[in-house]
Amino acid sequence: MNGFDEISAPLRTIMTPGPVEVDPRVLRAMSTPILGQFDPAFTQMMNETMDMLRQVFQTKNQWAFPIDGTSRAGIEAVMCSVIEPGDKVLIPIFGRFGHLLTEIAERSGAEIYTIECEWGKVFDQQEIIDEVKKVQPKVLAIVHGETSTGCMQPLDKIGPACRELDVLSIVDAVATLGGTEVKVDEWQLDAVIGGSQKCLSVPSGMAPITYNERVERLLFTRKKVERGVAQAHDQVKVNHPIRSNYFDLSQLQDYWGPRRLNHHTEATSMLYALREGLRIVLQEGLKERFERHRLHEKSLTAGIQAMGLQYNDVLWKLPMVTCITIPAGIDGDSVRKMLLEQFGIEIASSFGPLHGKIWRIGTMGYSCRKENVLFVLSALEAVLIRHGASIQIGHALQAALNVYEAYV
Amino acid sequence: MNGFDEISAPLRTIMTPGPVEVDPRVLRAMSTPILGQFDPAFTQMMNETMDMLRQVFQTKNQWAFPIDGTSRAGIEAVMCSVIEPGDKVLIPIFGRFGHLLTEIAERSGAEIYTIECEWGKVFDQQEIIDEVKKVQPKVLAIVHGETSTGCMQPLDKIGPACRELDVLSIVDAVATLGGTEVKVDEWQLDAVIGGSQKCLSVPSGMAPITYNERVERLLFTRKKVERGVAQAHDQVKVNHPIRSNYFDLSQLQDYWGPRRLNHHTEATSMLYALREGLRIVLQEGLKERFERHRLHEKSLTAGIQAMGLQYNDVLWKLPMVTCITIPAGIDGDSVRKMLLEQFGIEIASSFGPLHGKIWRIGTMGYSCRKENVLFVLSALEAVLIRHGASIQIGHALQAALNVYEAYV
Repeated sequence: MNGFDEISAPLRTIMTPGPVEVDPRVLRAMSTPILGQFDPAFTQMMNETMDMLRQVFQTKNQWAFPIDGTSRAGIEAVMCSVIEPGDKVLIPIFGRFGHLLTEIAERSGAEIYTIECEWGKVFDQQEIIDEVKKVQPKVLAIVHGETSTGCMQPLDKIGPACRELDVLSIVDAVATLGGTEVKVDEWQLDAVIGGSQKCLSVPSGMAPITYNERVERLLFTRKKVERGVAQAHDQVKVNHPIRSNYFDLSQLQDYWGPRRLNHHTEATSMLYALREGLRIVLQEGLKERFERHRLHEKSLTAGIQAMGLQYNDVLWKLPMVTCITIPAGIDGDSVRKMLLEQFGIEIASSFGPLHGKIWRIGTMGYSCRKENVLFVLSALEAVLIRHGASIQIGHALQAALNVYEAYV
Repeated sequence: MNGFDEISAPLRTIMTPGPVEVDPRVLRAMSTPILGQFDPAFTQMMNETMDMLRQVFQTKNQWAFPIDGTSRAGIEAVMCSVIEPGDKVLIPIFGRFGHLLTEIAERSGAEIYTIECEWGKVFDQQEIIDEVKKVQPKVLAIVHGETSTGCMQPLDKIGPACRELDVLSIVDAVATLGGTEVKVDEWQLDAVIGGSQKCLSVPSGMAPITYNERVERLLFTRKKVERGVAQAHDQVKVNHPIRSNYFDLSQLQDYWGPRRLNHHTEATSMLYALREGLRIVLQEGLKERFERHRLHEKSLTAGIQAMGLQYNDVLWKLPMVTCITIPAGIDGDSVRKMLLEQFGIEIASSFGPLHGKIWRIGTMGYSCRKENVLFVLSALEAVLIRHGASIQIGHALQAALNVYEAYV
C-alpha cells in the first residue's frame, strides 16, 4: 500500500482564461478504451480530427493536426520547423505571450526584431506593416488574443500585407480559436496555432495547428527521415535540419499523412477528447458559438460595470477575457482566494506589469454559460463586500439578467 | 451539423509493445472534471504524482515528473537540456530506438559517437565501459529495453562506471519502467525516461522522467527565466541556453517545484491518468508487478514454443516483448490483419532489418493478463492454420495452461 487514494477532485467553477471546464461529453470520450496508433479505427479518427480542424480554422489547408503537447508545444513546433538559425523574425509584443514568442524564436536561433506597445493596447495594423517593410523579416510572429492583457490584435490587413511582401506569418491563436473568428484563409495567415484548453474546451495537452503550402515548401528543404524507419530513397542529411525531432513538422506530416510513417505514439485519449471537442464546436456552429461568447461577455461586463468596477472596455477587447481593475486598497489575491475557498470559483490574476493590478475573468468554451456568469458576479460582489470594497450592491445580477432577457 | 458521430471505438485486445490497454480505473480517472493548474487541489496531485514516480523509479531524486508529450518528448527534454552544442555523446545502438537517441542528440548539436551490435543482441557491459573510456564523452545515452528487437541491455555496471569516469548517463527506460527493475539509484543512472503507454498502462501523452543533482547542476549553468514572468534577480542571458523552451528542464523544475513559476498549462486529464496509473502500480507492488510480467511471458513463450514457433529465447530477452520468427512462406502482415479483423487482436511487426521477419507480442501492464495471453495464442494458432503454416496444433493453450497451473 502506498497510502494514496483514488482521485477525488473538488468541482470548480472555472472562470479563468484557461484551462476551462470541459463538456461532460468530452470527459466521457476520454474513457473510451485504447486503440493502437495504426489501427484503422484510430487512423480514421485522426483523419476526422484533421477534417474538423480545417473547419474550425476556416481553412482549406491540407495540414491541420494537433501537436501532442500543451499550447506552447504547438507554437514551438511551428517556430522551430520554420525558423533557421540567423533568420530574421519580427515580433510585435503587446503582452506576456508576445514575449513567449520571442523566447521560442530566440532558441530557434532567430535574429529577433521586436516592437512593443503598452500592455492593454494593441497595434494599429499599418504600424506593423510598416515595420515589416522596414525590417524585411523572413517571419512575422504575432499573438492574436493576448490573454495576459485581454486584448485582441486585428490581423485581416497584416496577413495579406505579409503575403504580398513574401513574409511568412505565424499566428498564436491559442486563446481565440473556437471562441471568435480566426479566418486562416481569408486573412492569408501561413501558420496558426490554437489551444485546446481554452475556447475549444478540451483538456490541456494538445495543440491544434495548421499551415499552408508556403510553409510546407520550406519544410521540404529541411526534411529528414528518421534513420530507424528511413528507406533508401529518403534523404537523411540536410543543410539546416530542424533542431527538434519531436516538433519536426516534416516528420509529423509523414505520420499524419497517407504515408503514416511511425513517429511518436499518438496520444490516444487526448485525440479522443479533441475529436469530441471539435465535434461539439461544429455541432453548435462557429457563428453561433462566437455569438454565445459575445453574449456572455456582454452580460458579465454589464454586471461588472453595474457593480461600479472598471474593466478593459476597449474596441480591441478580447471577447473571452475581461480584465477588471482591482479597486484601490483591495488585496487582489485575497479576493481570489476567498472566491476559491468559499465559492469554488477560480478567476485569474495577471503577469508582469499588470500583476496585482487586474483580475482576469475568462468566458471560454463550456465555462462560458449563463449560470457561471451569474454565479461569478454574485460571488465577486459578496467577496468584495467582505473585503470592505466600496461597490454598488445588488445591481450586478440585475444588469446581467437584463442582458439575457433582452437576448431571448 | 458536420456529420460526425460520437466516438465509437471497437474494443481491442492489444498485445503490442504499446500503446497497450489501460486499466478501467485509469480511463475513469480521466473523466474527472478539470481543475485549474494552480488550484491547491491540483498542485497537491502534482506533488503526489512526483512522490509516486520516485517510488516507481526507485530513486530518492528530488526531480521526478512527467513531460507533457509522448515518450520521445521525455527523451528530447532530457537530451536537449543536458547536451550543449559540441558535446561528445556516446550512443550504443542495438535497435531502432538507439537510432532515435542518435537523431535527437544530433539535433541538439552533439558530436556523436556510436557503437552498434547486431539487432537481436545486446552489448557486453564491459564493451560499453571500454568505449566510454576511449571516447571520454560528456554523456552516454542508451536504451534499456529495445522494443524493436525485444532485447534488454544490462546497466548495473555501466551506471557506476560512468559515475566514476564523470560521464552523465541518460537511459531510455520507456519500455521497461513499471514492468521490470529500473533501479535508478542502485545503478547510479543520472537521468532516466519512462513511458506511460507501455508497462505503466496509462495512455500515451506523458513521459515520466527523473534526474539527479549532477544533471541539476548542469541545468543551473543554462538556466533562463521567461521574460514574461521573470523578476529582477532572475538572469535572462546565459551562454548556451537550452534550445527549446517547451523542453527546458530548468524552467520545468520551477513549475514542478515549490516556486510554481508558470510555464505550460499542465495537461490536467493526463495528469489524472498518470496519477491513477502509478497508484495502481504501487498498490500492486513493484515486485509483484514484475513477477506478473515474468509469469505471463513464461506462459506466452511456452505456448509459442509448443506451437513449434521460434522466439527470441535469449538471456537478454526483454520480459515484456516476445519476438516470434515469421515462418517461411507466411505473409506476416496478412496474419496480423486477420488477427485484427477476425479476433480484434493487435500484435506488432517490427522496423528496419527485422521488418517482415518477426512479429512482436507485447505483454505490458494491464494487457499483460491471463485471458489475453490465452486468447492471442488460440487466435494465432487458428490464423496460422488458415494461412497454411505448418505448426503443432492443439498444444499451445495446453502449454500455457500448464504454466498457469504450476504457478498457483
